[in-house]
Amino acid sequence: MEIIKQFELSKEYLESLRQAIESEDLNFIRETLDGVNVADIAALLDELSMDEAMYVMRVLDDQLSADILTEFEDATQLRILKELEIPEIAKLIELMDSDDAADILNTYSEREREEIISYFEDKVKSDQILDLLRYDEDTAGGIMAKEFIRANKNWNVVQTINEIRRQAENVNKIYSIFVVNNRQQLLGLVSLKRIVLAAEDTKIEDIYEEEVISVPTHMDQEEVAEIMRKYDLESVPVINAKKKLVGRITVDDILDVMREEAEEDMQAMTGISDTVDEYDSVIKLTKARLPWLLIGICGGLLGAGFIGFFEEGLSKVTALAFFIPLITATGGNVGIQSSSLVVQSLANKSIFDDSLGKRFLKVLLVAVLNGLILATFVFGVVVFIYHNEVAFALVVSIALFSVVLLSSFMGTITPIVLDKVGVNPALASGPFITTANDLIGLAVYFLIAISLLNI
Amino acid sequence: MEIIKQFELSKEYLESLRQAIESEDLNFIRETLDGVNVADIAALLDELSMDEAMYVMRVLDDQLSADILTEFEDATQLRILKELEIPEIAKLIELMDSDDAADILNTYSEREREEIISYFEDKVKSDQILDLLRYDEDTAGGIMAKEFIRANKNWNVVQTINEIRRQAENVNKIYSIFVVNNRQQLLGLVSLKRIVLAAEDTKIEDIYEEEVISVPTHMDQEEVAEIMRKYDLESVPVINAKKKLVGRITVDDILDVMREEAEEDMQAMTGISDTVDEYDSVIKLTKARLPWLLIGICGGLLGAGFIGFFEEGLSKVTALAFFIPLITATGGNVGIQSSSLVVQSLANKSIFDDSLGKRFLKVLLVAVLNGLILATFVFGVVVFIYHNEVAFALVVSIALFSVVLLSSFMGTITPIVLDKVGVNPALASGPFITTANDLIGLAVYFLIAISLLNI
Repeated sequence: MEIIKQFELSKEYLESLRQAIESEDLNFIRETLDGVNVADIAALLDELSMDEAMYVMRVLDDQLSADILTEFEDATQLRILKELEIPEIAKLIELMDSDDAADILNTYSEREREEIISYFEDKVKSDQILDLLRYDEDTAGGIMAKEFIRANKNWNVVQTINEIRRQAENVNKIYSIFVVNNRQQLLGLVSLKRIVLAAEDTKIEDIYEEEVISVPTHMDQEEVAEIMRKYDLESVPVINAKKKLVGRITVDDILDVMREEAEEDMQAMTGISDTVDEYDSVIKLTKARLPWLLIGICGGLLGAGFIGFFEEGLSKVTALAFFIPLITATGGNVGIQSSSLVVQSLANKSIFDDSLGKRFLKVLLVAVLNGLILATFVFGVVVFIYHNEVAFALVVSIALFSVVLLSSFMGTITPIVLDKVGVNPALASGPFITTANDLIGLAVYFLIAISLLNI
Repeated sequence: MEIIKQFELSKEYLESLRQAIESEDLNFIRETLDGVNVADIAALLDELSMDEAMYVMRVLDDQLSADILTEFEDATQLRILKELEIPEIAKLIELMDSDDAADILNTYSEREREEIISYFEDKVKSDQILDLLRYDEDTAGGIMAKEFIRANKNWNVVQTINEIRRQAENVNKIYSIFVVNNRQQLLGLVSLKRIVLAAEDTKIEDIYEEEVISVPTHMDQEEVAEIMRKYDLESVPVINAKKKLVGRITVDDILDVMREEAEEDMQAMTGISDTVDEYDSVIKLTKARLPWLLIGICGGLLGAGFIGFFEEGLSKVTALAFFIPLITATGGNVGIQSSSLVVQSLANKSIFDDSLGKRFLKVLLVAVLNGLILATFVFGVVVFIYHNEVAFALVVSIALFSVVLLSSFMGTITPIVLDKVGVNPALASGPFITTANDLIGLAVYFLIAISLLNI
């Protein structure tokens, strides 16, 4: 990574920082961290012990400490907040952007929240934050910020620039200025570029764009992300039921939303039931993994009972047991492939639904083709390499073909059903599908064996 | 979705559009689509037949057609381009932003590319695009655009605004102005907000920020995405080896990169070897799924051969066969969970590597805990519900415990190794891990059975 002023985050620097903390060399700490990006400082403090990190944060100025606290991963944030007194917490939170402040306050109980906010010196800020706390965390209202520039349509360019000047300290990034009427309802927006190029007495009314995409407070954050991606927006205004402009979501928050959602899907697909990472405790990691493993185990135990029914047949044709893993593994693989394609197409919703019938026909055709190729291959190996009887090889091949068909169907239908009832369809791609397909595969295999081998 | 001027993309409108095409009612088409967002028009045309869509695009003005073409999914884009003559293609591509133009030209052979570019009327544009075509598509150079505002550090604010005015038509979105020296080397940037608030005779030199994050042309696009996410950037300058400013990447392109990468990971994890979606042909879908299924099948066949070795033991204790699915499924589930956690932590790289030893110790502890709980549970069920002998239940439980341990280890080590040798570690979470774990599980199970049951 080449960065023009790249921060030298070497093990050597980390060592000298530790020494400076030890010897309370405040100047070294302040000077070497001056001008370093907060994201880099946060990453650096993450490498220190809690006491060392707290020491550095107290040495730096409050605004910088607040910014660093915002950058930390949730777990680190919580650990640091636990070390601080309520007035200290209030001081830092008050210096944050309203959306980050609300995120942190959401981790406290209602009583603690009120106590923290009671220490705020800025009444406007506390009102803004109390407003944000009313919204569900995963909605547009929950991720929006109160910091944005709003211009009345009757203003001219100079008045608007004055408003930008007045807000310059609060609003870090200005992409567009939102235009409202006297009732604060959103009418449109005007880009900063247009403000720069317009004459001073130009009325906002005459230069703003009416075609503006906005989102309601209650919209799910994933949908907001998809709209911003689709329409290439760097910020989007949030409006309430009365069309009043109440906040703004910027694209940097959306990048985080997208990463979160991708991780959530991946965890759902791989059977981890809680959002965890490597740094969580052994107990938490174990608890997150256990539920799905237990479901798999129960499936396996059911499967054992099931095979037990066919004990007689199995003791006559022991070779039947050899191909159990082949059948169950293929069922699982085909099921996961199918559901992953459906999950993907559910995420990229087209506006008009393709007819379900047409979709299933295609799934069926792909399954038939795959099934035929795989079954033929397995038939050949079982007869010519493992030297089994043709009748036996037929049982394995037909069972395999049927399992490919059934698993494709299951893998396609499960995520669609989950999506319809409002459950994350990615869950279907995980252990659930695999377990169900194991059982279906075993049933098909032994039923075909019984019918064809007369055992 | 509440959008202030929401386009009514109803089935009724689609019908009336079809009728207008039929009756060649150009006014209806132009008027109803006037002011509609290009992303919406593209989605609409996707619902029409190729002939109908082509008709609409030819009716609309060239700039709008070029924008619509940019918005289409790759497959639709290709189909439409095939219908056009080279001069028509050149006209549309010339009207696109340089990065979109280069993306499309990259789908042509070198000879076709040269022919298309020979029709360009704007020499600057063709030079820009030829420059972009030199870079690998998945790198910063491959996704950057040539449209950006650059100011010499010796300019004042008025000169800079004049440059913005001069470029206003070419550069749609201006976030920051990049500051360069006389040799066009990147020195820093100045935000548009600062330009708005500064006095006219202020020198750029006096207001620009030197701490600017830039990326080199050869950086992988995924890394660029991670940098923009981490540092909350809406645009990032791209520099060449001589530190010369050569392009800019905006965050809207990064949102697309992130979606692509997430889809790629999901497909890798679920064993789909080619980037496909539901709309691809049956043959293409089959081909994308077959390789991994075949690997799974080969694993299953090997497993069959493997169990065959233990035929004698199996015919003595048929019940051993009952628990094969339990063992293989648990191995698969544990392996996928472990690898998914590692893949996630590889994606969110911390700056200093956690020591491998510490990481494995934790994995081991979680595995031991999960393994003990699961094995105890299974022991209970096998003895008290299935009424098997204690010795037999011990075999199943010990095998299960060992499989949980081994699969955790395999699931942790495989993605790390793949990442080290430069392969996408998400591949490890898919059928590869599952197949390997099936075989390991079988081996452990039968070896323990032989040792403990004396068969």
